Amino acid sequence: MTTAPAIILVEPQMPENIGAASRAMTNFGLTDLRIVKPQTKFPHPKAVAMASGAVQVLDAARVFDSVEEAVADLGLLFATTARERGQAKPVDGPAEAVSLMRAAGAGGTKSGVLFGRERTGLENDEVSRADRVLTFPVSPKFRSLNLSQAVLLVGYEWFKAEDGSLPFDMPSHSPLAEKQHLNAFFAHIEEALARAGFFNPEDRKPIMVRNLRNIFHRLGLSEADLRTLHGVIAALEEGPRGPSRRDRRKLKASEEDGQKPVEDEQG
Amino acid sequence: MTTAPAIILVEPQMPENIGAASRAMTNFGLTDLRIVKPQTKFPHPKAVAMASGAVQVLDAARVFDSVEEAVADLGLLFATTARERGQAKPVDGPAEAVSLMRAAGAGGTKSGVLFGRERTGLENDEVSRADRVLTFPVSPKFRSLNLSQAVLLVGYEWFKAEDGSLPFDMPSHSPLAEKQHLNAFFAHIEEALARAGFFNPEDRKPIMVRNLRNIFHRLGLSEADLRTLHGVIAALEEGPRGPSRRDRRKLKASEEDGQKPVEDEQG
Repeated sequence: MTTAPAIILVEPQMPENIGAASRAMTNFGLTDLRIVKPQTKFPHPKAVAMASGAVQVLDAARVFDSVEEAVADLGLLFATTARERGQAKPVDGPAEAVSLMRAAGAGGTKSGVLFGRERTGLENDEVSRADRVLTFPVSPKFRSLNLSQAVLLVGYEWFKAEDGSLPFDMPSHSPLAEKQHLNAFFAHIEEALARAGFFNPEDRKPIMVRNLRNIFHRLGLSEADLRTLHGVIAALEEGPRGPSRRDRRKLKASEEDGQKPVEDEQG
Repeated sequence: MTTAPAIILVEPQMPENIGAASRAMTNFGLTDLRIVKPQTKFPHPKAVAMASGAVQVLDAARVFDSVEEAVADLGLLFATTARERGQAKPVDGPAEAVSLMRAAGAGGTKSGVLFGRERTGLENDEVSRADRVLTFPVSPKFRSLNLSQAVLLVGYEWFKAEDGSLPFDMPSHSPLAEKQHLNAFFAHIEEALARAGFFNPEDRKPIMVRNLRNIFHRLGLSEADLRTLHGVIAALEEGPRGPSRRDRRKLKASEEDGQKPVEDEQG
């Protein structure tokens, strides 16, 4: 775990954006928020509202009078800009910038990213204080990213590179059904379909059966899935002539997880 | 260019989020916005304000009465959720989801992503209508992503995979200086430093010279950079005893881009 970069907002005009930036930082484990001359009072209730509970970063934010003071302790500094500034500085996207900050951090260097004013961005003089320029891959038709969205993308790439794990995965309560049970299901459905006159003309039966098996193979069915599908075939075949809904329900319940059939009082 | 996915917002409560989602979509070239039962009137002035000019997507948004109708023409559907729902559905992060949507699109399949209500997300029944689950790599300490931020991340990954080019690169007006000019600069600075008594003790001179050359080599200097640095060395060495500032300025101007020296009227 390398040190996460500092996020430096330069003269933000809307307290909502400071709050939304705090929330975005918190989503991705960034904690060091610095604000240079906020243009509204700070802290501000609208910032707190937009933080949606992610107030720890907001509460710990530090306010500075100048960019120079705000970046004093940083080693590797990026300036975000949406347009070219004619300054001979290397330009990186967020993923590349994060990769450089992680490498620098591994060597003990603390990094930071400067974000400019909502309307006008960073001044050229502020850009010239940074090592590199960070810009975002955006549609040439509409390049204007919201301030907190820009912060979010840096945080997202940081977290993705640092950890990147998803909060959960597909639940795997049931392992895949054994082939003997899958084949028993195929036998069940094929017999039922034969009785129903589905394989017509008869000489098409082999290819129809193959297609059907392939559809079910694609599903990666579990034993529980097979029990459900056995029930579905039985119900469709028996229809209103088959056992009562009540009896089918008892049968289904007894098949699931070895539970005892339960009397259906409304049956 | 494959077809960009549809973004489907289910019962969004805040019109601001619809506007911010439109802006985020526009930033990344997504155009197909669908809204299921917006909980405030739509269109809404707060949505327009938050779109910050990206109103084309907002104006073209379609409103539906149910998820079923909203996804009717889609082939591959993702449901975004922040928590596990106990449904046996594959789970992807945004980059993986985008990769699957692009592959499906190449085969003519139209994709879409369902986003739930701000507070409660998607209902389990809505999730069950999707092929796969999409979730975001977020800090376990604060998983709640703002609705428009979630839309932004899907758009960002889409655009990155589809195009991914940055809007600009480092300006490269000047090629790297030729080594003969770099070496002439080294000679200049080394002579100036020798005169100033910098190489002391004398037997340290070789290593000091080497370190100095390595610093300047790291810079990847252009011919224009070299002219600037020649001027810097000359100015420092000459100090107040050297030519007047006016003369130096004329000299510098004549060196830059072959321009003629300009009279400094305040000189």
